[in-house]
Amino acid sequence: MMNFDFKNLYLINPTNIDDECYIRAVHADKILDDAKIFSSFEDSIREIDYLVATSSIESKTDKRHLRNPIILEEFCEKINEIDGKIGLIFGREDYGLFNEEISLCDAMIKINTSEIYQTLNLSHSVGIVLYSIFIKNFSPKIKRNIGKIEKEKLFEYINSLLNEINYPKHKIEKTKIMIKRLLGRSIPSKWEYHTLMGVLSRTLKNLKK
Amino acid sequence: MMNFDFKNLYLINPTNIDDECYIRAVHADKILDDAKIFSSFEDSIREIDYLVATSSIESKTDKRHLRNPIILEEFCEKINEIDGKIGLIFGREDYGLFNEEISLCDAMIKINTSEIYQTLNLSHSVGIVLYSIFIKNFSPKIKRNIGKIEKEKLFEYINSLLNEINYPKHKIEKTKIMIKRLLGRSIPSKWEYHTLMGVLSRTLKNLKK
Repeated sequence: MMNFDFKNLYLINPTNIDDECYIRAVHADKILDDAKIFSSFEDSIREIDYLVATSSIESKTDKRHLRNPIILEEFCEKINEIDGKIGLIFGREDYGLFNEEISLCDAMIKINTSEIYQTLNLSHSVGIVLYSIFIKNFSPKIKRNIGKIEKEKLFEYINSLLNEINYPKHKIEKTKIMIKRLLGRSIPSKWEYHTLMGVLSRTLKNLKK
Repeated sequence: MMNFDFKNLYLINPTNIDDECYIRAVHADKILDDAKIFSSFEDSIREIDYLVATSSIESKTDKRHLRNPIILEEFCEKINEIDGKIGLIFGREDYGLFNEEISLCDAMIKINTSEIYQTLNLSHSVGIVLYSIFIKNFSPKIKRNIGKIEKEKLFEYINSLLNEINYPKHKIEKTKIMIKRLLGRSIPSKWEYHTLMGVLSRTLKNLKK
């Protein structure tokens, strides 16, 4: 939860929150400290506006509305449209959620898995659901691409290099495009750009000697 | 691994693979049975064509090439372009991967996390990486949308309903569009369609009485 910026843990009839729980939480002890304990599922959902159940068991046909799921990825795309407090409900490690619990929920999400082995353990289910919501909604994007000026300078150098090594004239354009595509796909950072430019300028200097 | 169709586990200097390992593997005992054991990292990567390291530690600037990562989601988009056997390398629970090990890899991936708590445990890292690769590449898509004929039939019924209830003429078009949008976003399955049609036809029958 702390890895993905989730703060509010609600526990229903949990075991004792003892030292082992804190050891396993590592640096996320605050989440355990702040956890709210409830004695019934109904109590726990009183202040939640939108309830999402998670289950690995879906109806085989799509005839049964109850366990007719929305795929996790689809849900993550739509989560911003939901107004109010959202509750993600995870069931017991052994039995999951009961039908009566799922029937109280607004939606049921399913984590896509292999057909061969569909049941994930509780811990991994939670990890994957929270990660998926996090990356679709709060995750920082790395901006590392170089600008237009740097790109032009780089291609000027590459041009000079191709001239210096007497590269066959009829191949020059194709090769330049290939290099452009290559760099386009690898998206060099500013630092990688400067390193590349260093290599190129040294090569050019040596060629001109 | 079995949840996401990954089969080949390579272990380097592991602890004894004892009963506890099998209990934890639940139904994935075959992966433990087939696991290859190596005594050095170099040995384990001999037959791998493309090595991907995973680490939560990235260079703060992007000056250090070694730990300059590609974001997991980006990597998953590109994985199909990689030719040959891909090895996903996960480090020790406590130290992760050493720089010498990362330097042997072709790329390093990073799992986006909260700024507050970046370190994931090994088990969740593996779960999230394998899940992310699985859904981008092998995951079955649920096809549940109804066809053109069903849609037309549904709107014919809605049209009849609006007529039967003497719905204000100047509002009819707007309301029909609203219903279209609503159903467009919820993407009804065939079964949900038939249920809806059942409700509508019964309503219409009763209105006409």
